Amino acid sequence: MNSVASEAVLIGLDWGTSSLRAFLIGAVGDVLDEISTSQGIMHVKGRDFDAVFHGLIQNWHSAAPLPVIASGMITSRNGWQETPYVSVPAGKDALANALVPFTTSKGIAVHFVTGMTANHNGAPDVMRGEETQIIGAAAMGLGDGLYVLPGTHSKWLVVKNGGIEDYKTYMTGELFGAIKNHTILGTFMEEGPFDKEGFVIGVNAGLSAGADLLHTLFHVRTMPLFDKITPEMTADYLSGMLIGAEIASGTAGGGDQPVTLVGRGDLTDRYEIALSIAGRESRRAPENICARGHFEIARSAGLLS
Amino acid sequence: MNSVASEAVLIGLDWGTSSLRAFLIGAVGDVLDEISTSQGIMHVKGRDFDAVFHGLIQNWHSAAPLPVIASGMITSRNGWQETPYVSVPAGKDALANALVPFTTSKGIAVHFVTGMTANHNGAPDVMRGEETQIIGAAAMGLGDGLYVLPGTHSKWLVVKNGGIEDYKTYMTGELFGAIKNHTILGTFMEEGPFDKEGFVIGVNAGLSAGADLLHTLFHVRTMPLFDKITPEMTADYLSGMLIGAEIASGTAGGGDQPVTLVGRGDLTDRYEIALSIAGRESRRAPENICARGHFEIARSAGLLS
Repeated sequence: MNSVASEAVLIGLDWGTSSLRAFLIGAVGDVLDEISTSQGIMHVKGRDFDAVFHGLIQNWHSAAPLPVIASGMITSRNGWQETPYVSVPAGKDALANALVPFTTSKGIAVHFVTGMTANHNGAPDVMRGEETQIIGAAAMGLGDGLYVLPGTHSKWLVVKNGGIEDYKTYMTGELFGAIKNHTILGTFMEEGPFDKEGFVIGVNAGLSAGADLLHTLFHVRTMPLFDKITPEMTADYLSGMLIGAEIASGTAGGGDQPVTLVGRGDLTDRYEIALSIAGRESRRAPENICARGHFEIARSAGLLS
Repeated sequence: MNSVASEAVLIGLDWGTSSLRAFLIGAVGDVLDEISTSQGIMHVKGRDFDAVFHGLIQNWHSAAPLPVIASGMITSRNGWQETPYVSVPAGKDALANALVPFTTSKGIAVHFVTGMTANHNGAPDVMRGEETQIIGAAAMGLGDGLYVLPGTHSKWLVVKNGGIEDYKTYMTGELFGAIKNHTILGTFMEEGPFDKEGFVIGVNAGLSAGADLLHTLFHVRTMPLFDKITPEMTADYLSGMLIGAEIASGTAGGGDQPVTLVGRGDLTDRYEIALSIAGRESRRAPENICARGHFEIARSAGLLS
């Protein structure tokens, strides 16, 4: 919440797979009000996004008609309106030019931020929503460098001149779950609180794994077998190994660029520890960078005039 | 089956996790008779290995008392008798010296081949059974080089002077299953016959993945999304990517050593194709190398006098 009270000028939606956040945004990009729900696109019954939308924003919108901008998986194949991807490199102007207009059943205009695609050696990459957060973070003065969004599918973005120069997705979080819950490695893991020692050993293993990751994963079995770690350390050892391998890849060739972590909670704490072991200082992005991204793109598109 | 008929001199057991093979072995290491069952250690009711053993070999053993040698997971923590590991490097003499004697309830002497351990940068590796196969293969004239045993946990062994110099385990097979069956990547896969084109694209991606494997895995989602491969190719693309990454690691620094594949069927065919793409010629080990390994170790231990 910005300390300067301002008029509402925009409604921003961050509509992801498992959650939906809506922002009432003021004249300087400040958040005047916010609603969080679990109505992510996978939880909307009958895919009736129209009904969810009107139920969510009716109070904000009835006071005075406001432009609406929406980012995230809502523009994917399983969302409300599938939109094409903008290719990297792209900044807020390119994203503003690529906004896809849409009109709801009650005649409200929604502007969809399209996803972004990258291509490395013929293999495409995709994201929807993260680009908006990073545009916001860059506008808030965090500047160029590497941005990391830890998660089921972690994203590493290279920001240059305030725009997204390139990025890569990593399967780290989902692979951790599949290994823990559905391989023999998980059968030896005992539950417990975060074990930093096991995590640190894992991070070092992951940082040096290189092409050997398929081999080092087997150490999740052998390290407790030889009493080099306890069964209670095993899950955090695996977590560290995968995050370490991700960091080794994500920071390769990145020089001394600042690393900004986007997110809160235990998972982001783990990345902070692991980056430190890798010899990289990191900082945290402030909250509400997504709303600021909506504001920057909307302003660039002339929606706030 | 050797063409020279000979007297039975040894009974060899290859007792693994999911299957049990027993060999009646002749005076030149030839296989006179063989029994295969699904009584692997995980399928033995009440862990009554003694009963399974006597039921299996009674006919062979009643004719004349024969020495018995057994290798595989039967010597693991969940097996009949846990034995310590022999460290690499070790050949047939070291394995013969480390045999663990055991007497069954009916007074039959069984000699357990212990497993072998390796250690890379403080992280241990383990195997039980593969060492016996490789001792047999080397004795059959395949000589030094790299030996690959594809599977749930693939093994890559370096053979020098007929002994096992070093080895590494890879989680390839189990990771393939966990990813296909328990991540979002599997939800886009459509069943079909082996798709060689998809597999080859995957092998090339895996060979060049290096530390980026966590990133390239995401391409299993994006390649079909951008119509670069069909949904029917996706599973074989993933299979190729993981096998390619395994080969990149397994052959690193291995020079031009010959590569011998141990195994039969579709999975070994895949490794043959992938090794060829990696520019490595490969050959197949003959059948019954395990029985020949039992024979060599037993002879070295003086059990055949």
